[in-house]
Amino acid sequence: MENLNQKIISLCKRRGFVFPGSEIYGGLANVYDFGPLGAEMLRNIVDSWWKFFVRGRPDIIGLDTSILMSPKVWEASGHTASFADVMIDCKDCGQRTRADQLIETWESGEFGTADGRIWDGVPPEEMGKYIEEREIKCPNCGSFNWTKPRKFNLLFETHIGIVPEDKSLSYLRGEIAQGMFVNFKNVLGTMRPKLPFGIAQAGKAFRNEITLGNFIFRTLEFNLAEFEYFFNPNEQEWEKVFDYWKEEMRTWILSLGVDEKRLRYRLHTDEERSFYSSKTEDLDFEFPFGFKEMFGLAYRTDYDLKNHMEKSGEDLRYTDPNTGEKIIPHVMEPTFGLNRVFYALLTNGYTEDGERVVLKLHPDIAPYRVAVFPLVRNKPEIVAKAKEVFDGLVKQGLSVDWDDRGNIGKRYLSQDEIGTPYCVTIDYQTLEDDSVTVRDRDTTKQDRVKITELFEHLK
Amino acid sequence: MENLNQKIISLCKRRGFVFPGSEIYGGLANVYDFGPLGAEMLRNIVDSWWKFFVRGRPDIIGLDTSILMSPKVWEASGHTASFADVMIDCKDCGQRTRADQLIETWESGEFGTADGRIWDGVPPEEMGKYIEEREIKCPNCGSFNWTKPRKFNLLFETHIGIVPEDKSLSYLRGEIAQGMFVNFKNVLGTMRPKLPFGIAQAGKAFRNEITLGNFIFRTLEFNLAEFEYFFNPNEQEWEKVFDYWKEEMRTWILSLGVDEKRLRYRLHTDEERSFYSSKTEDLDFEFPFGFKEMFGLAYRTDYDLKNHMEKSGEDLRYTDPNTGEKIIPHVMEPTFGLNRVFYALLTNGYTEDGERVVLKLHPDIAPYRVAVFPLVRNKPEIVAKAKEVFDGLVKQGLSVDWDDRGNIGKRYLSQDEIGTPYCVTIDYQTLEDDSVTVRDRDTTKQDRVKITELFEHLK
Repeated sequence: MENLNQKIISLCKRRGFVFPGSEIYGGLANVYDFGPLGAEMLRNIVDSWWKFFVRGRPDIIGLDTSILMSPKVWEASGHTASFADVMIDCKDCGQRTRADQLIETWESGEFGTADGRIWDGVPPEEMGKYIEEREIKCPNCGSFNWTKPRKFNLLFETHIGIVPEDKSLSYLRGEIAQGMFVNFKNVLGTMRPKLPFGIAQAGKAFRNEITLGNFIFRTLEFNLAEFEYFFNPNEQEWEKVFDYWKEEMRTWILSLGVDEKRLRYRLHTDEERSFYSSKTEDLDFEFPFGFKEMFGLAYRTDYDLKNHMEKSGEDLRYTDPNTGEKIIPHVMEPTFGLNRVFYALLTNGYTEDGERVVLKLHPDIAPYRVAVFPLVRNKPEIVAKAKEVFDGLVKQGLSVDWDDRGNIGKRYLSQDEIGTPYCVTIDYQTLEDDSVTVRDRDTTKQDRVKITELFEHLK
Repeated sequence: MENLNQKIISLCKRRGFVFPGSEIYGGLANVYDFGPLGAEMLRNIVDSWWKFFVRGRPDIIGLDTSILMSPKVWEASGHTASFADVMIDCKDCGQRTRADQLIETWESGEFGTADGRIWDGVPPEEMGKYIEEREIKCPNCGSFNWTKPRKFNLLFETHIGIVPEDKSLSYLRGEIAQGMFVNFKNVLGTMRPKLPFGIAQAGKAFRNEITLGNFIFRTLEFNLAEFEYFFNPNEQEWEKVFDYWKEEMRTWILSLGVDEKRLRYRLHTDEERSFYSSKTEDLDFEFPFGFKEMFGLAYRTDYDLKNHMEKSGEDLRYTDPNTGEKIIPHVMEPTFGLNRVFYALLTNGYTEDGERVVLKLHPDIAPYRVAVFPLVRNKPEIVAKAKEVFDGLVKQGLSVDWDDRGNIGKRYLSQDEIGTPYCVTIDYQTLEDDSVTVRDRDTTKQDRVKITELFEHLK
């Protein structure tokens, strides 16, 4: 599996899916840029999510809130106090590491599994004691001479205002949920939704984390998609709402072709669960380095709305249109790590078949739905015809690649590696009967298709 | 026109296009959230741009680079030294303002026009002298007792690393162009493009600005779309490349239904032009507060690549595949302020027709392409049929609203105000012959259409 990880990372770099951030300046640790193919694929993932969970449902409403929010939001939400990692330093070599990761890495070596206890969220004192008792050594220098574990907040700070004496502290959002809670009243007032309903958004969040460096699995800046599903706990049992969304989350990711055997739900332990949640389950995916969180589903009760109502002084209650009763709805929160979905789909799709490397991506997700090849470059009629086919497919909303280099066999191999489901070749016969060769990525079968029927064939 | 601005802002708030950021906590100045309709509309604008300039062209390649970049990037690009606003303080009341805006506001009052000289970029000393000579008074207290104008950098600072002694300075990107330049080598290596070609992206940028508060015209956090179009100046005259893109930029915005008379190109003066550019033109749109920049087109020569090549020590030259010659390409940069496009399309589309407020948005841009109405709520067959129509349209990729409240006339008015091009009503006749009423926003004409032909009709 480690080998697989190397292959994926290397493919990402070589073919333009993911580049290390600021690379020509020596890079910026744990920051990545999506390359030409990655940018298309990420867009496809967001679109698929938005279509499935927002546009596809009359009961879910979208939003797009800002990364900069009032610091009062993060004080009210508890993030300035509790959103923290526990760090530990080696006094001999100066190596600094997350205490939970130190323990988990040690346990996976000791017990041969990466699927042991989750230490994130365990109090620093308890972690310190565990490390002490087992004499877990520094992975860098081998010493056993640690500082006490200490908590550090994960919110990135920034200052609004450019004149030194006027600057005011602000934060980059550490999660996207608060944008939904803070706009709850605005959404009620403008859209007049009836319970149960959801408010959704997809966007970037930022966490000032020390990471183990598992490629794009955990980065300082990352893409999330999430919704808050509000309901009346007197009318719907929360357990049923929980189970409904648990199944919908699975349905979406399975619809993108992920192997069921690579998915596993895992219940959070009491100490691991966030302070706002009374039940959380993760949907883990089997990454090359083991089963790890891809999605989370948390029952946040009325914690957030109640809290924001108290701290802001605004009335955030929902008025039942039938009874006139005012209630604070409860909320179920499905969260989707989109960079992780990206990584998971690459892991899931990577296959080797003799000399062929084939990235079996769902056609809705592949960077290009189709590649168009003029058979030769020096025959203007063929090139013009190919351009016409290209334009026609683009016009119908498809993402289309153009390749006129090398022989057709090589072009096929090149497209297989980036997951393009179909390759269309325009050749001499096309000039006679307006038909093209359509070659299928997975079967390598070739069909002769009329240009007029091409779009339907590719859909 | 000021009245129009108030109407647009009020519509945005009332119907869920734009909300003030962090509003329940008293707001965060010059930060806005896109509400449910705004989020859909913004997505549509980005999609339209991406389709026109990236997916629609084999010569332009997309990217999605991170907001956090190495500070070395901003040192190399000149932003840490030169990306600044000039501020001036009133010594009597403490009012702080941008010197260029102070002068421009004064001039527009004095000379009755907002279209005078652009002062942004003029050296602080010159602005100070101008204010001094004309005895421009403080708009707050009426005094004439200013400090000297001072420069302040617009980049938002943040620190990577959570342990105080290990924190390192970083910036939120102040423009999105650097992500393209820094990845130039990676794109060459992976995509092997031939000159001329472009690298594009759309995403957020951040500027720590003091603003005049023109709604979403100038905000701390905003959406940009941009590409760098690389060419060989020995093979293509830069003037022709400039004019080509100037026309394409116009073509795109006109394709979204913007009135030609509301557009105007304006050449930057020498002092206004950014330090990296040798020619810049803005495409201004007539906002309710006058003609102001919406797009910019800058000829950046080889400034950026040369500069990054020197500072990073990496070879960023392009090798001509025919001659083997290595050159540093020149670059043309079209920049699109997407929040401003959003604002412009609202301004352009806002019309009043008797009691009807109609937002004439292009169907590709309107938050909803179509609204589906069950005629009545208490007839399950009608509701079920309407749901079927809704699902069918969603499945075909359309953004669809659902409204079952109040009488049909009121629902029409409500959809007109948010720009929905079509309303589809499912009634008793539908149950008999599978036809629905389709009502057109602009003509208010109603057609009877078979459900099987609905999708084609709406496209």
